[in-house]
Amino acid sequence: MHRVVSAEIDLETAASVDLIFQIATRADVPLASESLTFSQDVDPVELIAADGTRYHRIRSLEGRLEVRYTAVVQTQDAPSPTSDVELITYMRPSRYSESDILFGQARRQFRGLAGAELVQAVADYVSESLAYTSGASNGTDSAATILPKGQGVCRDYTHSVVALLRAMDVPARYTACYAPGLVPMDFHAVAEAYLDGAWHVIDATRLANRRGLVRIATGVDAAACAWLSYHGGSVSLKRLQVDAEADAPLADDDHTALVQIA
Amino acid sequence: MHRVVSAEIDLETAASVDLIFQIATRADVPLASESLTFSQDVDPVELIAADGTRYHRIRSLEGRLEVRYTAVVQTQDAPSPTSDVELITYMRPSRYSESDILFGQARRQFRGLAGAELVQAVADYVSESLAYTSGASNGTDSAATILPKGQGVCRDYTHSVVALLRAMDVPARYTACYAPGLVPMDFHAVAEAYLDGAWHVIDATRLANRRGLVRIATGVDAAACAWLSYHGGSVSLKRLQVDAEADAPLADDDHTALVQIA
Amino acid sequence: MHRVVSAEIDLETAASVDLIFQIATRADVPLASESLTFSQDVDPVELIAADGTRYHRIRSLEGRLEVRYTAVVQTQDAPSPTSDVELITYMRPSRYSESDILFGQARRQFRGLAGAELVQAVADYVSESLAYTSGASNGTDSAATILPKGQGVCRDYTHSVVALLRAMDVPARYTACYAPGLVPMDFHAVAEAYLDGAWHVIDATRLANRRGLVRIATGVDAAACAWLSYHGGSVSLKRLQVDAEADAPLADDDHTALVQIA
Amino acid sequence: MHRVVSAEIDLETAASVDLIFQIATRADVPLASESLTFSQDVDPVELIAADGTRYHRIRSLEGRLEVRYTAVVQTQDAPSPTSDVELITYMRPSRYSESDILFGQARRQFRGLAGAELVQAVADYVSESLAYTSGASNGTDSAATILPKGQGVCRDYTHSVVALLRAMDVPARYTACYAPGLVPMDFHAVAEAYLDGAWHVIDATRLANRRGLVRIATGVDAAACAWLSYHGGSVSLKRLQVDAEADAPLADDDHTALVQIA
Repeated sequence: MHRVVSAEIDLETAASVDLIFQIATRADVPLASESLTFSQDVDPVELIAADGTRYHRIRSLEGRLEVRYTAVVQTQDAPSPTSDVELITYMRPSRYSESDILFGQARRQFRGLAGAELVQAVADYVSESLAYTSGASNGTDSAATILPKGQGVCRDYTHSVVALLRAMDVPARYTACYAPGLVPMDFHAVAEAYLDGAWHVIDATRLANRRGLVRIATGVDAAACAWLSYHGGSVSLKRLQVDAEADAPLADDDHTALVQIA
Repeated sequence: MHRVVSAEIDLETAASVDLIFQIATRADVPLASESLTFSQDVDPVELIAADGTRYHRIRSLEGRLEVRYTAVVQTQDAPSPTSDVELITYMRPSRYSESDILFGQARRQFRGLAGAELVQAVADYVSESLAYTSGASNGTDSAATILPKGQGVCRDYTHSVVALLRAMDVPARYTACYAPGLVPMDFHAVAEAYLDGAWHVIDATRLANRRGLVRIATGVDAAACAWLSYHGGSVSLKRLQVDAEADAPLADDDHTALVQIA
Repeated sequence: MHRVVSAEIDLETAASVDLIFQIATRADVPLASESLTFSQDVDPVELIAADGTRYHRIRSLEGRLEVRYTAVVQTQDAPSPTSDVELITYMRPSRYSESDILFGQARRQFRGLAGAELVQAVADYVSESLAYTSGASNGTDSAATILPKGQGVCRDYTHSVVALLRAMDVPARYTACYAPGLVPMDFHAVAEAYLDGAWHVIDATRLANRRGLVRIATGVDAAACAWLSYHGGSVSLKRLQVDAEADAPLADDDHTALVQIA
Repeated sequence: MHRVVSAEIDLETAASVDLIFQIATRADVPLASESLTFSQDVDPVELIAADGTRYHRIRSLEGRLEVRYTAVVQTQDAPSPTSDVELITYMRPSRYSESDILFGQARRQFRGLAGAELVQAVADYVSESLAYTSGASNGTDSAATILPKGQGVCRDYTHSVVALLRAMDVPARYTACYAPGLVPMDFHAVAEAYLDGAWHVIDATRLANRRGLVRIATGVDAAACAWLSYHGGSVSLKRLQVDAEADAPLADDDHTALVQIA
């Protein structure tokens, strides 16, 4: 299976500003080809985190900036292994996945469950507790504010799953990804739970076919996986178009089963 | 049925301070006798709110203050009716019952339910979502912080029930009360829901026999029903002993049924 | 001085719904004339709270509803006195003015201040801590969330002032009002602090001339003073136009001085 | 200058449990000697994070566990350099340092400041906004909840400094450390701000002499630097004794100046 993923981003900046993009696939994703271009004459720096997440940093000029990314993704083998230090990180509360606040609720709700059964129970609980609603949440919402609200988008579902899993001592991370077949097409986010030496994907929104996902960034939560961060100025987004296609149909995704992505 | 209720409160104050007690029964509770005494030579003022809640206010001297309250309560007739303005008040979000924050969660959780069925579903939900745990919550906790925590005491159960009911357009209030038979004996708090022209009592802790309850204060939440408030100084509580007894055994309380108290 | 105040409200409802308006002036505001009309054939009920706030309640039909309110306000005498029970209410934390959460911050920030000096210090502090920004806050924001955000509108300024004053043992309330000369014209909100037997107006936004204000509703916070509340359905606001004019120019408002409104 | 640091920790566990200690000095701290012992027959694993933080992980047996750590620290040379990826991490909001929530407040409070002047202004602001109070805060408190409370301990001061710096685009991290001369002696926490290629230490509590500090762990906030974490069981702390001494007197610490520690 080949997948073609792309992002077209048009920005306006009133002044020169530092921009960090997380739109390229993780370093362990096997690519047939890849291209990242900027309309301004800038000199992008690629940084690769220990976990394989790639950052592209530029200093923009004032004015319009058009960013184009596209990659052809091959069938993946196993992803790079996760270090023990990383796993410790994924047990901790984080900004948007406050497992410390949700500890009591999780312990009560999921008492006696472990392993795959626990992961599935958390996925089902979040899926039933939230209604997918654009615009109901904002950038400072987190697991602890979303569960009382009962509404959110993929970011919020993922934060809730991650927080509840960590409260149950399961290492869990946030994964930003390209999702072939997603409607409406956009950047997507899912949770991953570490069980028996491998990461299992949870999409509590039930919107994506997990086998088609292509990882961009993995991290503690959305704070670590933003497709754009900037410092020292402001940025206006003029256009964002994300695309992701697979060259073969994907088998239906049964969200009651565990799935890994390579 | 007669009930004897009492509170013994010993305080120390480092300086003169304004104290407001809400320990006497509501004005519409029929009493055979009542006594409220203060060990200091103070001149208590009784204030009665429109809803019948009574306040006793004194200006303490420096030093030790012993307060003794006791009342013999007769079988009550119907309580005083609730005004339309009061009912509007009991539909609003309040400090510890933030129905505005819990709106989405409530609408999702209790979709399609109304009337007694809704009230019962809210009571069951809160009862199952929280574990009764002394010391797990504090004075700034509210419905929106307790449900994620999953632990609390009678105050927290009541705030959660009240908030969820208001989010579903059911007028709901917080009632501080004496509770004959409560173990361990203490001031108690329950929720009341307004349905078909009457208040129905919900004790999501399932700890009290609702038919024995004697109302002290009713209000929007614990902020309106504190047994002691003070201003302009600090107070140290040395001893608190609450007692409440009924002279006849109470029929078992079936918490799946609605109950009013007169 | 005469003032003419008015509100024009156009709504659409998908089904019959209960609507409660707080757009008429408080019962103690002396009026030369007043008119409240509804485009639908409904039967409004007027409720008057103990503090003089008036509610107009109707059961709307499905469809468009046009509400027109106008009043000619005469020079006011002293407003109705405030009961001791009311004053107790205005010392408590409320939904959007959480004086319990801000207690430590207030005690530290305003240590040693009392009376008019304290009230002025709180007004200055809030005025300097917030930037007036439309759209930066939302309906679940409160004093405890706005002060960290540093941005808000008149509602948020008022909640912050009220919370900090209560934390310092000063009774404080939220007042929704018509504000002649306000730019842009809209419903306005200010705080009132109770000092020496009278209410003093604080407008930490510095946008209104306090002497021109006409009280609509007074209450613990915005939860008690919404110009529209509804239950049992949803409502879409199509148009809102507020007007307020004084027939004589108002002396400049020196916000470093205390002002009462009659 | 030599410093001797030590920690004695006695725990009780009801069952076998995974324990992770962060009590040993960072890998880049030059040591004359070091010892870490456990009273149970366990096999500790040492993990070293990319930034030099060391973890010691064991699986405890049921019963009492006594942990003894001591190290003799030599005068340090420059610490290990910080990678670009790490710096990106230290610009993000984290669990206890929510720079996203405090963004507006920080931008308003520190407008126009940069570099050393900004760092000093943030340190002063936090120092003046909080009162050092044991027991006023708890483990779920964070910058956004502590600043309204106005009270906290070293953890809370550090979280507030870190959050405000990040909101101003200054990379900032949390550093757990041994602090010779601290009264009362305990584990300590300070903030570090990255300016001109080096980390500068901020102790808004003003309690420690910064030149004497010995780094244990550095991370996004207290979630990354806990001296003990455990999973899969519960742990009871029976005794904790921390010691830190320098063999030469330290010059007085002028907290209005920037200080680096090697």
